[in-house]
Amino acid sequence: MSPTITGVEVIDVRFPTSEKLDGSDAMNPDPDYSAAYVVLRTDAPGGLEGHGLCFTIGRGNDVVAATIRSLRPYVEGRTVSSVTGDLGSLYRELTHDSQLRWLGPEKGVVHMAAGALVNATWDLAAKEAGKPVWELLASMTPEEIADLVDYRYLTDALTRDEAVEILRAAEPGRAERTARLREQGYPAYTTSPGWLGYSDDKLVGLAKEAVAAGFTQIKLKVGGSLDDDIRRMRLAREAVGPDVRIAVDANQRWDVDTAIAWMTALAPHEPYWIEEPTSPDDILAHAAIRAGQPVKVATGEHVANRVVFKQLLQAEAVDFVQIDAARVAGVNENIAILLLAAKFGVPVCPHAGGVGLCELVQHLSMFDYVAVSGSWDGRAIEYVDHLHEHFTDPVVVENARYRPPSAPGFSAAIRPESVAAHRYPEGPVWRARLGGDQ
Amino acid sequence: MSPTITGVEVIDVRFPTSEKLDGSDAMNPDPDYSAAYVVLRTDAPGGLEGHGLCFTIGRGNDVVAATIRSLRPYVEGRTVSSVTGDLGSLYRELTHDSQLRWLGPEKGVVHMAAGALVNATWDLAAKEAGKPVWELLASMTPEEIADLVDYRYLTDALTRDEAVEILRAAEPGRAERTARLREQGYPAYTTSPGWLGYSDDKLVGLAKEAVAAGFTQIKLKVGGSLDDDIRRMRLAREAVGPDVRIAVDANQRWDVDTAIAWMTALAPHEPYWIEEPTSPDDILAHAAIRAGQPVKVATGEHVANRVVFKQLLQAEAVDFVQIDAARVAGVNENIAILLLAAKFGVPVCPHAGGVGLCELVQHLSMFDYVAVSGSWDGRAIEYVDHLHEHFTDPVVVENARYRPPSAPGFSAAIRPESVAAHRYPEGPVWRARLGGDQ
Repeated sequence: MSPTITGVEVIDVRFPTSEKLDGSDAMNPDPDYSAAYVVLRTDAPGGLEGHGLCFTIGRGNDVVAATIRSLRPYVEGRTVSSVTGDLGSLYRELTHDSQLRWLGPEKGVVHMAAGALVNATWDLAAKEAGKPVWELLASMTPEEIADLVDYRYLTDALTRDEAVEILRAAEPGRAERTARLREQGYPAYTTSPGWLGYSDDKLVGLAKEAVAAGFTQIKLKVGGSLDDDIRRMRLAREAVGPDVRIAVDANQRWDVDTAIAWMTALAPHEPYWIEEPTSPDDILAHAAIRAGQPVKVATGEHVANRVVFKQLLQAEAVDFVQIDAARVAGVNENIAILLLAAKFGVPVCPHAGGVGLCELVQHLSMFDYVAVSGSWDGRAIEYVDHLHEHFTDPVVVENARYRPPSAPGFSAAIRPESVAAHRYPEGPVWRARLGGDQ
Repeated sequence: MSPTITGVEVIDVRFPTSEKLDGSDAMNPDPDYSAAYVVLRTDAPGGLEGHGLCFTIGRGNDVVAATIRSLRPYVEGRTVSSVTGDLGSLYRELTHDSQLRWLGPEKGVVHMAAGALVNATWDLAAKEAGKPVWELLASMTPEEIADLVDYRYLTDALTRDEAVEILRAAEPGRAERTARLREQGYPAYTTSPGWLGYSDDKLVGLAKEAVAAGFTQIKLKVGGSLDDDIRRMRLAREAVGPDVRIAVDANQRWDVDTAIAWMTALAPHEPYWIEEPTSPDDILAHAAIRAGQPVKVATGEHVANRVVFKQLLQAEAVDFVQIDAARVAGVNENIAILLLAAKFGVPVCPHAGGVGLCELVQHLSMFDYVAVSGSWDGRAIEYVDHLHEHFTDPVVVENARYRPPSAPGFSAAIRPESVAAHRYPEGPVWRARLGGDQ
């Protein structure tokens, strides 16, 4: 008999990152990196558990946790096999609750909450299968993968038949690419030098360290002041030389005209892409910015769902698609986005950092390489060297490449002692800080 | 000395509407119409209070209520005058909380929560001024109105200067239109006949009643089955005759091809508009549907924010803009949308119904008529005859026109006995239904 999912625990975990300005940018001056952390408990022998999370930057983490709890009836009490045996159906159920849907639809808090649960069920499925998620996905047939996607609102750009066709075209080289991935790892780039709160000296020092560590791409936050950005861009360019790519990231700071003027001013220092130049909802503005200045355009970490990604591709508004493991509704919706990007021939360079986003999203890029786009040319996963020590299966980045995870699951488990210390507001880390406020 | 906002009470109020299939449509089969209801308490003599609400359809109402509570620090303890004297700044603070913004940005639960608070502060301001909200707005100068808007992400379509120009152009006729509004009321249309769960007989009976009551436009829900829709559309057309407009509403049911095929099949019965044919996020799909079949296109009740409305207008994707009083961030963001619609020359026909949406949104259309577009030609506010008895200042629709409210405020106050009865889950209405579950 199949074991049962006996309970869903949801924990508000927060790290006081605002104290060091790690993660500071033009729109997010003081983030406390946080996770609404999900643990699916089962009665399987050996204590099988499924882990997932939604990343937030502090306030509101409790709201996401409460929303995940409101979705528990979809999972609790079901047999593990009924969930892991049909991960397409569960994803659709979670994203189409007829009442919660009103609060999206398919966006914001309710969608992120669904994503955390979906990802936790993928962790469970991969552990059951004894494989890391990337390998579990890459071992499925084109038809099985295609059935994980919800094609509603996609068929003007991607049908199930087209998805199967894309996946079949990538089937022949799977074994070879898997071997190459294990040998070389997946390309990474680093954002660690470029946070807006860092001094020039810290920026230059970290940029040089990044190059010494083998990175061929770094990223700087921009959008505070144009003079500062020109100086920082110049310093970074001098530090890394002409051959290292320097992406810049405005975190949604600008309107169309400002973006075009600002990027035209930075262009002589050859930024590789401009990331999030404006609102993540603004497909037409991204298209106008892409057409109006010489630097390539990237976005995605705040793009709410597959419908907006579809339009960014249809409107030729982006040169790079930046999926995020924990904003859309988990693995299933990200497969739709990988397929859309493959259809339109646009490379996927995931957003990561935060809490556990590197750990999660590496699986999706590796799956993309092995079984969807079949390529890593022009692609790299963001890497930020924060908070990995709190994970039981942390990412390993060596010589600027992500080593493929080998442990079964989704690499989403947070160490029990880290959870205990950082529970909000009752964990000791927060009790000490909140003091008399509690 | 100005009185102080001493507290923000947030109450989860739900009505068990799913029992009668009132409000049923192709995507929302079983709504329990609900409100996350906000009461701003003050220490002003006479018990001045500000009321606002976020409408939901049941599950998740608690999540919105919790999110509103997390925004209380922006309001609690402030003087009434510091809030009501600068309603532009407070709106920007509420929508740009540097941490909660991550959960949107400006969409879904966090945005709706901000909207409920913004609307409650408008109720407070209007009561202080001794005017209904529509009249308070219509008494402001073009510059004062223009300063209520956040132009971020709008300037490629609407600048503050252009907003002032639009408002100045409508200034001369304000007094005359106010008088005409008081005399004639604002046009309404009714959705009451057309819920998907109703029998053919009920549909025909209610459609005839609507015409007898003076309505020149009704609305039917569609999107369940094409055969049913053709039959229902034919029955409705026979019941109301050739001169009454019959709008249809698919509640996001379709992809592009299906929408075009379905509406082409319904077109012989002359539907007035097709509402929400597909995802509210899909600007390009709305444009394709508008271009691909003969029926006019309307959307808006689920459009997340002004940025998406802007694009629907830029892409010529809609013939009607359907604002909702409680989905975007309240009065301020709706003023931006009214100005965008005026700029593009597209009429605004608000979504209403739900809990209190008619009560709230009538103020915005009346303000639009007096001071923004200056016209009610081709415009009508949706009217649904549900739940008005629970409001202390319910809408008055006579001969298919909304009478302009005269009581100071935003008409958002729910009767205390209704709140007490319908509190979820502890009110007697729910205790009786939930029984042993609690």
